[in-house]
Amino acid sequence: MTSPAPAATVHKAVILLSGGLDSSTCLLIARSEGFEVHALSFEYGQRHAVELERARAVASRYGAASHRVLRIELPEPRASALTDPDAVVPRGGVAGGGPIPPTYVPARNTLFLAHAAALGESIGAGVIFIGANVLDYSGYPDCRPEFLEAFERALQLGTKAGVEGGLEFEIRAPLLALTKADIVRRAASLGLDFALTSSCYDPGRGGRPCGGCDSCRLRARGFAEAGLADPAVA
Amino acid sequence: MTSPAPAATVHKAVILLSGGLDSSTCLLIARSEGFEVHALSFEYGQRHAVELERARAVASRYGAASHRVLRIELPEPRASALTDPDAVVPRGGVAGGGPIPPTYVPARNTLFLAHAAALGESIGAGVIFIGANVLDYSGYPDCRPEFLEAFERALQLGTKAGVEGGLEFEIRAPLLALTKADIVRRAASLGLDFALTSSCYDPGRGGRPCGGCDSCRLRARGFAEAGLADPAVA
Repeated sequence: MTSPAPAATVHKAVILLSGGLDSSTCLLIARSEGFEVHALSFEYGQRHAVELERARAVASRYGAASHRVLRIELPEPRASALTDPDAVVPRGGVAGGGPIPPTYVPARNTLFLAHAAALGESIGAGVIFIGANVLDYSGYPDCRPEFLEAFERALQLGTKAGVEGGLEFEIRAPLLALTKADIVRRAASLGLDFALTSSCYDPGRGGRPCGGCDSCRLRARGFAEAGLADPAVA
Repeated sequence: MTSPAPAATVHKAVILLSGGLDSSTCLLIARSEGFEVHALSFEYGQRHAVELERARAVASRYGAASHRVLRIELPEPRASALTDPDAVVPRGGVAGGGPIPPTYVPARNTLFLAHAAALGESIGAGVIFIGANVLDYSGYPDCRPEFLEAFERALQLGTKAGVEGGLEFEIRAPLLALTKADIVRRAASLGLDFALTSSCYDPGRGGRPCGGCDSCRLRARGFAEAGLADPAVA
């Protein structure tokens, strides 16, 4: 009998994966940095539930070690255009520096990060990747670096793993300061199959992007500026 | 026709209500301070699910404006003696300053507070009451004041309500520095019907407390030191 070889240290990361362009790019970045990736998606009554199919496809295609879809109950009243079926998804075009848009979901990233921390602590993954971005989405307070830093600090102080050591909680937002065009270029360089991803807030049958919502407009602008065609709208 | 009288300003608070002694006391404290109380409980696969019945009874008896029970999916593997049906609930007695106990649930208060924030932001309640306590439960990292402060800061930075104003997020832990005897006295002074509450980690049929788990021991010691009888174990 031979002794088993000593196991190489595996670095695990939890990836918040919506199935959109940004989070899918995060998954590829984490993989390119050598992490064993554990994808985490949420069903929270979003009208763009096609996201979850895309998240499954991305996790499967790019070798996620696991992929979980958790159901989150958001409180009523639903105060967001992304979850209220009677609300109107804004199509007014996108501009930085404006007020917080109606597509903001109360405490959404707080909830997502809390679940990511619970998963991370359970499986021994201290690094959490989130596709937050301040340039194009400056209106969302829960995408801002100061929020992410405060939350990271809370995790370091409030978890067994953080306090007893062995697991340094770290929230990584590698897209934070990138433009959408930068993200498209980065994703392309990592080999992302864009056709797998869905960014639309209000997709039609078969998940076809509407082309008019703020998220579709941002994506289109990013591809245009990067000089690439988007196969998802071909 | 007369004009309606101007509405008095209503201050709303979210109370994390487990149905135990501590959180029930928090509810009464919030009420005594004039808050409209909105109770929030969780079903997370805990073995002491009788808690939820008690939470409903407490919320109903003491005039909560609303009471929600949210289901939370905790990630597998279940790394806590409170949620793993095969684990042994510790009965070794309680001592401060020790290691984090096996009844710790990964990121539980992080998850609870995240949901409380989502609810608070949706209904306009900026104050969150949590029955965290550092004296008797010093082993739980997510009950420590530095964690609660960091989380409060994250909410102030990461919510629409916190950033745009109108709602100052505040996490209140009024039991933080009290002994269990202090809590029993405070609850008695506020008129809490102790028989409604359940503290046991491993209750028997009909919710009868086991008397031997750490939580039962702490509670018994608190009543003894306060010089009161506990009707829940009569």
